[in-house]
Amino acid sequence: MKQYLKADPWSIIEEGFHRAYNENSESIFSIGNGRMGQRANFEEKFTGKTLQGSYVAGVYYPDKTRVGWWKNGYPEYFAKVLNAPNWIGIDITINGKALDLNQCEVEDFRRELNMKEGYLERSFIAKMKNGVKVKVNSKRFCSIVEDEVGAIRYSITPLNYSGVIDITPYIDADIVNKDSNYDEKFWNEIDREVRRRQGYIVAETKKTAFQVATGMKFSITVEEEDIDFDSKKINKEKYVGNKVSIGVSEGSELVVYKYAAYLSSENHSKKELLGNCKSVVKNAFKKGFNTLLSEHKNAWAAKWEESDIIIEGDVSAQQGIRFNIFHLNQTYTGEDERLNIGPKGFTGEKYGGSTYWDTEAYCLPFYLSTADQRVARNLLVYRHRHLEKAIENAGKLGFVKGAALYPMVTMNGEECHNEWEITFEEIHRNGAIAYAIYDYINYTGDVNYLAEYGLEVLIGIARFWKQRVHMSAAKGKYVMLGVTGPNEYENNVNNNWYTNYIATWCMKYTLESIAHVKQTSPQRYAEICSKINFIEIRESDDWKEIIDNMYYPEDKEKGIFLQQDNFLDKEIIKVKDLDPTHLPLNQKWSWDRILRSCFIKQADVLQGLYFFEDQFDVDTIRRNFEFYEPITVHESSLSPCVHSIQAALLGMEEKAYEMYLRTARLDLDDYNNDTEDGLHITSMAGTWMAIVKGFGGMRVKDDKLHLNPFIPKKWKGFAFKIRFRGALLQIKVGQEKTEILNLSDTPVSIILNGKDYALNAVENLVL
Amino acid sequence: MKQYLKADPWSIIEEGFHRAYNENSESIFSIGNGRMGQRANFEEKFTGKTLQGSYVAGVYYPDKTRVGWWKNGYPEYFAKVLNAPNWIGIDITINGKALDLNQCEVEDFRRELNMKEGYLERSFIAKMKNGVKVKVNSKRFCSIVEDEVGAIRYSITPLNYSGVIDITPYIDADIVNKDSNYDEKFWNEIDREVRRRQGYIVAETKKTAFQVATGMKFSITVEEEDIDFDSKKINKEKYVGNKVSIGVSEGSELVVYKYAAYLSSENHSKKELLGNCKSVVKNAFKKGFNTLLSEHKNAWAAKWEESDIIIEGDVSAQQGIRFNIFHLNQTYTGEDERLNIGPKGFTGEKYGGSTYWDTEAYCLPFYLSTADQRVARNLLVYRHRHLEKAIENAGKLGFVKGAALYPMVTMNGEECHNEWEITFEEIHRNGAIAYAIYDYINYTGDVNYLAEYGLEVLIGIARFWKQRVHMSAAKGKYVMLGVTGPNEYENNVNNNWYTNYIATWCMKYTLESIAHVKQTSPQRYAEICSKINFIEIRESDDWKEIIDNMYYPEDKEKGIFLQQDNFLDKEIIKVKDLDPTHLPLNQKWSWDRILRSCFIKQADVLQGLYFFEDQFDVDTIRRNFEFYEPITVHESSLSPCVHSIQAALLGMEEKAYEMYLRTARLDLDDYNNDTEDGLHITSMAGTWMAIVKGFGGMRVKDDKLHLNPFIPKKWKGFAFKIRFRGALLQIKVGQEKTEILNLSDTPVSIILNGKDYALNAVENLVL
Repeated sequence: MKQYLKADPWSIIEEGFHRAYNENSESIFSIGNGRMGQRANFEEKFTGKTLQGSYVAGVYYPDKTRVGWWKNGYPEYFAKVLNAPNWIGIDITINGKALDLNQCEVEDFRRELNMKEGYLERSFIAKMKNGVKVKVNSKRFCSIVEDEVGAIRYSITPLNYSGVIDITPYIDADIVNKDSNYDEKFWNEIDREVRRRQGYIVAETKKTAFQVATGMKFSITVEEEDIDFDSKKINKEKYVGNKVSIGVSEGSELVVYKYAAYLSSENHSKKELLGNCKSVVKNAFKKGFNTLLSEHKNAWAAKWEESDIIIEGDVSAQQGIRFNIFHLNQTYTGEDERLNIGPKGFTGEKYGGSTYWDTEAYCLPFYLSTADQRVARNLLVYRHRHLEKAIENAGKLGFVKGAALYPMVTMNGEECHNEWEITFEEIHRNGAIAYAIYDYINYTGDVNYLAEYGLEVLIGIARFWKQRVHMSAAKGKYVMLGVTGPNEYENNVNNNWYTNYIATWCMKYTLESIAHVKQTSPQRYAEICSKINFIEIRESDDWKEIIDNMYYPEDKEKGIFLQQDNFLDKEIIKVKDLDPTHLPLNQKWSWDRILRSCFIKQADVLQGLYFFEDQFDVDTIRRNFEFYEPITVHESSLSPCVHSIQAALLGMEEKAYEMYLRTARLDLDDYNNDTEDGLHITSMAGTWMAIVKGFGGMRVKDDKLHLNPFIPKKWKGFAFKIRFRGALLQIKVGQEKTEILNLSDTPVSIILNGKDYALNAVENLVL
Repeated sequence: MKQYLKADPWSIIEEGFHRAYNENSESIFSIGNGRMGQRANFEEKFTGKTLQGSYVAGVYYPDKTRVGWWKNGYPEYFAKVLNAPNWIGIDITINGKALDLNQCEVEDFRRELNMKEGYLERSFIAKMKNGVKVKVNSKRFCSIVEDEVGAIRYSITPLNYSGVIDITPYIDADIVNKDSNYDEKFWNEIDREVRRRQGYIVAETKKTAFQVATGMKFSITVEEEDIDFDSKKINKEKYVGNKVSIGVSEGSELVVYKYAAYLSSENHSKKELLGNCKSVVKNAFKKGFNTLLSEHKNAWAAKWEESDIIIEGDVSAQQGIRFNIFHLNQTYTGEDERLNIGPKGFTGEKYGGSTYWDTEAYCLPFYLSTADQRVARNLLVYRHRHLEKAIENAGKLGFVKGAALYPMVTMNGEECHNEWEITFEEIHRNGAIAYAIYDYINYTGDVNYLAEYGLEVLIGIARFWKQRVHMSAAKGKYVMLGVTGPNEYENNVNNNWYTNYIATWCMKYTLESIAHVKQTSPQRYAEICSKINFIEIRESDDWKEIIDNMYYPEDKEKGIFLQQDNFLDKEIIKVKDLDPTHLPLNQKWSWDRILRSCFIKQADVLQGLYFFEDQFDVDTIRRNFEFYEPITVHESSLSPCVHSIQAALLGMEEKAYEMYLRTARLDLDDYNNDTEDGLHITSMAGTWMAIVKGFGGMRVKDDKLHLNPFIPKKWKGFAFKIRFRGALLQIKVGQEKTEILNLSDTPVSIILNGKDYALNAVENLVL
């Protein structure tokens, strides 16, 4: 736990320079726009603790797998999010001495992530070793309007000095990934150009041959007046810069405006990359910092208008939820169906690959409710684009006839993690990918998605499950052996309830979807059947046979489902009865001890009951919750949100609030002592769910929106907005009353606390 | 399968140069003496396919663990057998051209590993690119009499050339391990000296600071006459050599005699290392090649006298068993209780660490029967020396109060492998280490070993098992969760029958051993109790409770023990019904598919029934054999021997012979396509067991030797010798009769085919 940041409803604020926590702050104060992003590194030189990081969406490196002992079937590489050329750099030298906060006395240091307007600002007074005292203020953002553009306003005022200040804005493409498996550099230089007050580098990734052009152009003002100046070009391998020497008088403010752009060969032809980069930089320069920033603020205002959650009476909770929403919006905009949501977004390198099941299981609901329908749809289409690769992946593992196994971790559809427990056994991800199709259609009503994309994916997945189970002679039921469920504190277990359940659910849903498409789009159905060689009668009978005869481990006496076969052979101890010095288990216990213990990283039976809540009565959910919750250690960032939602459903207010707190400020307070590696982006969507589905009790059933709000005692009120079937609703929950505002001109009917209401356009409902 | 070697009862012979198989040959023709050893690399330069390897016993490097994803509790390093300075090098240059078989036309190439006399010989005629034709014969050995000494006779005869030949005998200490995790060199140079016709290097291993002095001295003869010659000293980093230029006439034989020594700081003080090395080299030089070789041959003759197995009527089988016995004797002599038997001996780097459970489970019986009792005893004492480390190791994994978990792989008692399935879960090794104590005492009658060393180890092990099991509320029995049995094609299973069984057996045997020591050495017993804080009444009651209430998975209907809980949920398919292109599974199937399949790498239920044969009736053994054998793929080199022994017991002649063949020529015929990495040394002892315990039916029960010989139809006869309680017996089994010769002057009583016989000194028994 670290608690050095100020509570504020709209900003994250660090006052005073916390050197030791700098890497932690670099993660927290990260900025991005869905296309690019970066850690809150300093513009000027810094020799202290830092993890330099700047990232371009969709650009990765297939780093050769590193394992202790090779296992047949391992993926060849572990894809790495690439640390890209640094465009923020502005070196400052005064009297021959570089400005470097690690070498200065620092006063009045303040860093602010202004979430409302989407910029990072930093100011300080530094006393350099040569006695020079300067005041600095820097402000920068990655524009969400011009999403290839970033801009910096870097102001420096000498407080006790008149004379020359050397300023070197630069681009550095000599970048390493800290998590490189073999200490290799991932970039080659392709082209480089330095011009007056400008510089450009085109770099190409090894193996994948992505090209990224990074460009910059700058101007300088003194006392708010544009000045003319000469600059010395610096042009060396993987580096371009312009050194400018400017005389200033004590107390005069000198400001560097630096405009930069990242253009990727994913969006431009390689031939035109450099030329286009120059145009983008030129246009940004022409618009100027203030215009760019003001467009950017307005765009953020619009985003907040849609996705903000207000919590009254609890600044810390307010700040937490906004921090989560802000970073989600910085990471993924849904505008590019080739992109997805990496667990660390643009805030760090860890977890390499971009896409996990987190997207479908945790992030989708956030985008469904807070963004245009197209955004969530693009997340689904992303998987459809990878269907061929998923079939190849299943083929590598011995599956045949179009069975699809989506990878656990991927950049381009190929599996790219290197732990067998995850790669080979966490096949439940296939279920979440099917579930997301259901979830999307259930929420949006866009049932045409099935014919267009969904059905092919579902059939591939159903085919996989069919081959992955077999009839146990001992049980006379279909079983599924050797899996790892969402609870990664078990490995290679038999009949994981969650996986068995979602597997048959997938088959059922596929059968329903087939029926639907066959009826509504018979021609498209015929086309699909022919394309994927699907003979319904043959395959669907197999699925029905499995659906009817699947084995689900349970304990009838306790009335609970068993996480896996023989779970009750474990010694059942509650987390509260553990010696607290043993926590977190993943840092204190050896792996084998964790594996054989009853303790759960995230409770997958509860995950299943959350997904399929309607298929169980509340008592069943309660019995399982009461059994599994006390033995869950929540050492996955994805865990507490589901518990919060379920506790809310079961009316366990304190537990719901406890679990909410655990997820909302995970990174801000550095609960798990790992924020310095980057933020837990995907679990941030879980925090949003804890409020909307948990405290708000939002569900969609049979095309109707249900709400069952409940408010924690400590709050005065909370409010969130959701989109639903063309309507935009605001739900305000207070201690006394609940208010629902239809902000759109689309009428909508809702079920509030079990009662039907019709809301006309722009109508309020107060209860 | 590779079948390019000639069948011969006493030698391994390669005729014609098989370039593509050179690394394979380098493994097979390896020589060693228990203290040092080396692959059959060439003395002269060779630019073709080669894996250079020379090794000194007990000298290792703790290479930082390399894993895909760190798991808490992992060992810090993976110990590597160290590739040591090369002492065999003799560069030959004629007319400015280096002799290099990769650059020559090669005729009459012949390589022989003479197992009877223990040397490696190689001869060839090479036509160099400059037209010079030379005949070469080299012969070398690592003396088993002077075990720090190696010697080479390198003869070269120009066939169409008269003139100068440049000869450079050298030592090269600039050595890399091919399996280095981080491409690091493991040796630093400490000292170096070049003298007339001599050279010395002292090198030190990084981190472990072992020092090894390597020395050499040489002489040259022409036409068998010693000649005087000048030499040019070559003295550079990590390299010492002497270049000699000698004029020879066509047809004259020039011979270099090179004497070398390895001295390790494990056996000499570092101060004296160089001085002692010079003395050892000097003495070897003085003795001369022929004397050294003749001593060496005599020592080998004595070894064969004890350990030879004769098979008549099957040269291929004869060659196979001698090859196994030869390499076992080259790897471990039992003279140094600090040493043990690495899976690849001195023939390759793979599997890093030196000691696995292989030693106790497979190698011990060989040394018990064929060497002085002290040899087997030293293998046990080795583990006693590591008891403190085993307690520390258990402590790292959360065990307390003197519980000992021996490492799965070790050099110095610390765990040093980096796969969790092996490191954390293959705890069955603890059982084999206890079993070896029983096995040793059962065979030798040296029950005093318990008081001296054994009991402390047994109590440590029993304490471990006690903490590793717990009472299952569901079963009302003690269970053991999350283990990997000897069958490594399963991971993280519950209630592995073998492990559960050997765990309770350990506790029982510990209780018996306590009773024995208490009665026979009460003072020593009190001493042990006080040393290890053992309060009998408290701990032994716990053990008894577990012994009485342990859970063993079984299927009563089938009458078999279950490898683990729910084994019968698997789809049971026989290996013979598998598509043969799917074999070997470990190269054709992905790891998850292997894990969930029924296929067994080595059958651990059968391993248990082999260890504890007396505790089960033959029908039980048969039922289990008939169930498990058909689903076993024998992809562990340790597997077929147990099946061979058990098939022999059950009278399944064909199966016993098939399994024997599978183990006996594993490396010679390169069954698993991996001999180039080194030989499977520890499984070679299994081959010996297949004959002695399988075909010979040898057992020791109640201090008596039992024999139940049976002979495969294809053989005329076979004969082996065993030591037993001071007697030396030869057992000759023919198709018609069995003959037992007591070659010693110790009378012995034996039970042959169930009938008692007393053999007086030097008496024969013919049946």
